[in-house]
Amino acid sequence: MFRKVLVANRGEIAVRIIRTCRELGIATVAVHSTADADALHVALADEAVHIGPAPAKQSYLHIPNIVGAAVKTGADAVHPGYGFLSEDPYFAEICAAHGITFVGPPPDVMEALGDKSTARQLMQKAGLPLLPGTITPLTSADEALAVADDIGYPVVLKASAGGGGRGITVVRRREDMPHAYRTTRADAQALFSDPSVYLERYLQPARHIEVQILCDSHGNAVHLGERDCSVQRRNQKLIEESPSTAVDDDLRERIGAAAVEGAKAVGYRGAGTMEFLLDEDRNFWFMECNARIQVEHPVTEMVTSVDLVAEQLRVAAGEPLSFDQASVRLRGHAVECRINAEDPDRAFAPTPGRVEHLLPPGGPGVRVDSHVVPGGSIPPYYDSLIAKLVVWGEDRDAALARMRRALAEYRISGPGLSTTVDFHRGVLDHPEFRLGGVTTDFLARMSG
Amino acid sequence: MFRKVLVANRGEIAVRIIRTCRELGIATVAVHSTADADALHVALADEAVHIGPAPAKQSYLHIPNIVGAAVKTGADAVHPGYGFLSEDPYFAEICAAHGITFVGPPPDVMEALGDKSTARQLMQKAGLPLLPGTITPLTSADEALAVADDIGYPVVLKASAGGGGRGITVVRRREDMPHAYRTTRADAQALFSDPSVYLERYLQPARHIEVQILCDSHGNAVHLGERDCSVQRRNQKLIEESPSTAVDDDLRERIGAAAVEGAKAVGYRGAGTMEFLLDEDRNFWFMECNARIQVEHPVTEMVTSVDLVAEQLRVAAGEPLSFDQASVRLRGHAVECRINAEDPDRAFAPTPGRVEHLLPPGGPGVRVDSHVVPGGSIPPYYDSLIAKLVVWGEDRDAALARMRRALAEYRISGPGLSTTVDFHRGVLDHPEFRLGGVTTDFLARMSG
Repeated sequence: MFRKVLVANRGEIAVRIIRTCRELGIATVAVHSTADADALHVALADEAVHIGPAPAKQSYLHIPNIVGAAVKTGADAVHPGYGFLSEDPYFAEICAAHGITFVGPPPDVMEALGDKSTARQLMQKAGLPLLPGTITPLTSADEALAVADDIGYPVVLKASAGGGGRGITVVRRREDMPHAYRTTRADAQALFSDPSVYLERYLQPARHIEVQILCDSHGNAVHLGERDCSVQRRNQKLIEESPSTAVDDDLRERIGAAAVEGAKAVGYRGAGTMEFLLDEDRNFWFMECNARIQVEHPVTEMVTSVDLVAEQLRVAAGEPLSFDQASVRLRGHAVECRINAEDPDRAFAPTPGRVEHLLPPGGPGVRVDSHVVPGGSIPPYYDSLIAKLVVWGEDRDAALARMRRALAEYRISGPGLSTTVDFHRGVLDHPEFRLGGVTTDFLARMSG
Repeated sequence: MFRKVLVANRGEIAVRIIRTCRELGIATVAVHSTADADALHVALADEAVHIGPAPAKQSYLHIPNIVGAAVKTGADAVHPGYGFLSEDPYFAEICAAHGITFVGPPPDVMEALGDKSTARQLMQKAGLPLLPGTITPLTSADEALAVADDIGYPVVLKASAGGGGRGITVVRRREDMPHAYRTTRADAQALFSDPSVYLERYLQPARHIEVQILCDSHGNAVHLGERDCSVQRRNQKLIEESPSTAVDDDLRERIGAAAVEGAKAVGYRGAGTMEFLLDEDRNFWFMECNARIQVEHPVTEMVTSVDLVAEQLRVAAGEPLSFDQASVRLRGHAVECRINAEDPDRAFAPTPGRVEHLLPPGGPGVRVDSHVVPGGSIPPYYDSLIAKLVVWGEDRDAALARMRRALAEYRISGPGLSTTVDFHRGVLDHPEFRLGGVTTDFLARMSG
């Protein structure tokens, strides 16, 4: 196992990784921007290295500074978390060139999966069901029109280099296509430095069902059940749960087997997520594979009792998985609410600033993953996630009752600070959500 | 199920009970002393009633004020927590006389078990093994000398009306007996208003092993495994875990069966704890039965996934237990550290005062049960327990690693405030504790 891991991230996921490292007896190195000098991940790590000013490009995305910090501190591995450099094959290669293990899939696998249209090709070959669409990037608006005519509207344009719900445009009418094609390419270029886009049928209503997978370098591959992430606002997940009310044992076995099949086909290694859409007839369609730990991984941890970050580290260190598929048991129900520093009344505008009062909820079945400290600041430079509130209950009703209780307990305030705590309470009280029938258009319908 | 429960307690256990009530959709009434006006249990309850000034006799032990609060607010049940009135049969009777359900065993059972020498008689009849000693209260120092001569020294004198580790004197030599007999009776009178004492062999080294039981009013009785509470300072528990390293499946089945047998013999109802001593030859000896929820109940909750407070409420409402013995599964390992506002360097003297900075640990497998709020006060009138830090791990090593990690994260400070956080870190690093071989004399040996 590694002696020292550099955590190439910030926020709650950096804290999360440091916690598991500490439990495994692995020393940790935090890296931080100037704005994060007093951040919790810095305080909790054994060592900390300043890697540049606040804009991510000059710190959390600055490969030479991060690799330099790893070399200087003698770290033998780098855990990239999610976002930032977590899916950058070039970063993984540079780490390898310096004798540092990158905690993630092999660079070539990451590269293949990072291009979403390449991923579609690979998964089609592996026999996974794809929504009708293109499996190579579109070359012109005319091609987009021709394909969409063939499939039928609505369709969705997606950045090939995208993922995580960004660089996506739904096109509902033929006359909107030329403009949508141009703007999506422009967005893709701006967001991912790659204008390539592909097109597929826009499935609605649909549920976002994703399968957590774990693969080691000894040929073992397992899935840990599904997460239902259908509560989304503009393709950003807000509430996740496991298991999904839409997935029974039979479907779980089939979609899990498909996920493992796809992972094996590309030589996957580490923790990953195979994302699917589920239609009304309970057909599932491969969307993308996220080659990293995901924000919503704790709901899987709570129903499986598996520490996914620990498994990531074990696999990266060359150890076999500590369990096999037969020993994976889903127990009870887990729900996660993303607590964001945003004002739901002002179109979820971020509300950075100082946290004056803070008391997270506690008691049975409640887990809080957060980097926010009383008296600390929420910098304006990064995403607005300030805590993940996760609960476990013996069934969905018990978990939702516990989440309502925990949300009601949450105390977090500061000058100008708004959070999504009350927004979540509204969603939890919504009959459609309570019944468990929510599809990805739920929030848009609810607010519209 | 009840509509409204009055919680006749304060501190973390009041918060604990309110949490479960809220999850079950039961309205809650908090009662509070003047000193607790701003306490967390008051803030979290749906209603709150002031019941008198700080000294417990004038508020948390003041039956007319508490029953009056229940009647006034229309509560249909009272949950007494632990301590205060939780084992007072007279309180239970007064509640019943007002048509209010007391969440606990029937008053006559509570009365029988409350007298520890009567409890010994009952359990002996039920076939449970007792340490050699008296099963009726001693009538004179001469009788004490005669019995001790017969048993052999050391022996222990215990207040009949005692329990919870108070009113206990170890007598190591014959010449100490007359004085010990007098002072223990005086202590018993002062602490419990009853000078009766009994005597039994003092077993050392021994482990404190207790079994959690649950009985409903339909004849169902189950045990939920054991807790090892051998880390004690002056008979007060500081660290508890489940399962015990000293208990294997066979012993668990035997001691669990004995506990259930004893509970059934006395017509027990609700949650209770049968306390045993375990000797070096793995013989177990009944000590006492605590007819209430206990401080350390969360370790059982974490390994069984059973909400003990919810089961207490269900049973009190006349519902059958929601599970049977065969469905009880112990999963993994849980450890609890009692975080007290005490100064370990000054003989664990209480350090009441204001809490300035507070950030409890979080992340996977960590549960914090606490009533302390940032900016709040720890009043000098009550016990010094300010939080229970409980962790779960897949095995004991994982749980201890997690506890070390969580203790290291704990941030709590204020003017003059000391806590047992660092003390616990010392215990966790002690080779004897790490090996799992600790007996009840461990802390005395460690410090002496």
